[in-house]
Amino acid sequence: MLNFVFHNPTKIIFGKGTISQLAEEIAPDKKVLMTFGGGSIKSNGVYDQVKKALCGYTLFEFGGIEPNPRYETLMKAVAVCKDRNIDFLLAVGGGSVLDGTKFIAAAVDFKGADPWDILEKHAPVESAIPIGSVLTLAATGSESNGFAVISRESTKEKLAFASQYTFPKFSILDPQTTISLPRRQTINGIVDAFVHVCEQYVTFDVDTPLQARQAESILLTLMEIAHNVLDQPDNYDARANLMWCATQALNGLIGCGVAHDWSTHMIGHELTALYGIDHAQSLACVMPAVWRHQKNNKGHRLIQYANRVLGISSGSDGEIIEQAISKTVDFFHSLNMPTRLSDYAIASDRFDEIASRVIGHKGKLGEHAVIGEQEVVDILNLAL
Amino acid sequence: MLNFVFHNPTKIIFGKGTISQLAEEIAPDKKVLMTFGGGSIKSNGVYDQVKKALCGYTLFEFGGIEPNPRYETLMKAVAVCKDRNIDFLLAVGGGSVLDGTKFIAAAVDFKGADPWDILEKHAPVESAIPIGSVLTLAATGSESNGFAVISRESTKEKLAFASQYTFPKFSILDPQTTISLPRRQTINGIVDAFVHVCEQYVTFDVDTPLQARQAESILLTLMEIAHNVLDQPDNYDARANLMWCATQALNGLIGCGVAHDWSTHMIGHELTALYGIDHAQSLACVMPAVWRHQKNNKGHRLIQYANRVLGISSGSDGEIIEQAISKTVDFFHSLNMPTRLSDYAIASDRFDEIASRVIGHKGKLGEHAVIGEQEVVDILNLAL
Repeated sequence: MLNFVFHNPTKIIFGKGTISQLAEEIAPDKKVLMTFGGGSIKSNGVYDQVKKALCGYTLFEFGGIEPNPRYETLMKAVAVCKDRNIDFLLAVGGGSVLDGTKFIAAAVDFKGADPWDILEKHAPVESAIPIGSVLTLAATGSESNGFAVISRESTKEKLAFASQYTFPKFSILDPQTTISLPRRQTINGIVDAFVHVCEQYVTFDVDTPLQARQAESILLTLMEIAHNVLDQPDNYDARANLMWCATQALNGLIGCGVAHDWSTHMIGHELTALYGIDHAQSLACVMPAVWRHQKNNKGHRLIQYANRVLGISSGSDGEIIEQAISKTVDFFHSLNMPTRLSDYAIASDRFDEIASRVIGHKGKLGEHAVIGEQEVVDILNLAL
Repeated sequence: MLNFVFHNPTKIIFGKGTISQLAEEIAPDKKVLMTFGGGSIKSNGVYDQVKKALCGYTLFEFGGIEPNPRYETLMKAVAVCKDRNIDFLLAVGGGSVLDGTKFIAAAVDFKGADPWDILEKHAPVESAIPIGSVLTLAATGSESNGFAVISRESTKEKLAFASQYTFPKFSILDPQTTISLPRRQTINGIVDAFVHVCEQYVTFDVDTPLQARQAESILLTLMEIAHNVLDQPDNYDARANLMWCATQALNGLIGCGVAHDWSTHMIGHELTALYGIDHAQSLACVMPAVWRHQKNNKGHRLIQYANRVLGISSGSDGEIIEQAISKTVDFFHSLNMPTRLSDYAIASDRFDEIASRVIGHKGKLGEHAVIGEQEVVDILNLAL
């Protein structure tokens, strides 16, 4: 096992009717900015529940945070925070609202010249306005970690940062808020959580049997419940189980003491930035290609995954690995999630540019740091 | 899934050589009281590592905290804290030192007449001196929760309390510190962690497939590594995996949204208080008896446990349940852990008294609250 630090101080308040507990978590003297997205919270009743729970608070609003939240938009919220002396941010929405709010929180307190440096130059985040969240989408795990991914429209960049200061102080997870989600967002959430697990599991073994089984627990459960959620969108327990799987997939726990990959995410971010495909759509195309390209490095763990998660036990090692990949693709297809870049009319003409950008941003990728520009091009060609 | 709150703010610093990081976690102006047990930390080098890491700190010491830490001893430490204006407690040891230190931390700040009220009358803990820990024994999970169990010598009582204020701020887990443990303590730790999981898993199903699999992950891993740890006491990875299993068994995670039992612990505490048998020894006797007595209530989950953890798939439901219990007993026996009260020369003469005490302290036990005094006597007779 590798040495690690695990510190996740977010208080999770999970279950039916929990939005009503909001006022117990925010001091009444706080000046609160409520951040949200395109307004679905107004049609599904969440906005009203939040307003009711915080009746009497000094509450400002900032709506319109996009999927793949944009630096340009978020800097407008930073100006509101400074103008109104906001001292608590309440993110109400999914991962994009959460991520965007984390950037706002860090940018308001940032001492440097341009908060974009947090993303591009890894400028240290030394403080942030406290954040709470009301989650309305099971997907990114942002409700219980310090990560955020931010896009810059002007340069078509999509970059990540992480800080201990941007863990939400609390996150309220009421699975009922996810019942009215568009089917596409539910599917995206399942795939996003699935790939989060794989990035921390389909690597090389450093003798961490518990973490491996904890990862397999999430994968098995996601596969077991995915069609229940899609076939019965108003099944509370199915929604609750998906929500908890998504949180567990990226709250840091399964990543303790193990080798991490994240090359699928890094390549996927570039595809989203350039072509606007959904985050999960990019992952479903890239991950099988990364696995095919890296099957020698990942073979041992892919065989374990095939055995324990997919129930594949017969065949040569090579056959088992191939089945592990193809059955994962089959699972994505069963959710109506495409797995080919050509399904989005993406051709190979900009693969060199993508490879140059991702390696320029991140250096060599993968748990062995062996994926350079040429390898990214090869992976993208495998994903065509 | 049941509604739940999960909030575990302890920072875990895990791995080889991590005690040297102690000074990064305690502000240099703190007046620190280092608490420990019978002195094994002086022979295994941990004491010296801590002293070296905190060179220059105002550091006081309080040794001699017993296994099943005693109120009478701990109140002496409370006096030291008040006398020296201690404002940070560093527990160096296993679960007993941790638990005792949590009580000290709460008792120093307690506003009522007698801190024993925290245990006996559930007097609320409204603050506590901050605690950190250096763990030297994988067993209780106390390094990452707010629970403590305290014994009172004068009345032969053993009672528990829990508070959000007594979570350690940090816990340093260096598996190397456990290599020199007596075999009996390692065995106790394996059984203690195993039973912690079962108390949160072998109950009734409320549609929580992820939590069930997370629990099964710990049980499977404990069974897989137990003999590695015992046969190769200096195998670092085996020690590391046991340590992480024990933390995960009682950090609150697998208990999120599920039905809890804890009757084995409650009955076991009375046995330890009256007869002085080790905590884990009491659990290994009581749990199989609770399962036999409650097999109608626990049947569904015992069959799942039999299938997924023990690999038992054939037989009638009744046969599978019986095999699940007997194979669990076999596992304990394989560790040289007795499972009968008669192995400790405990007879039935005080069973009525034990039943009266435990129900008097706790009310009816079990996930259905159907275990009253007569049922406790019946369970103890099954454990003879």
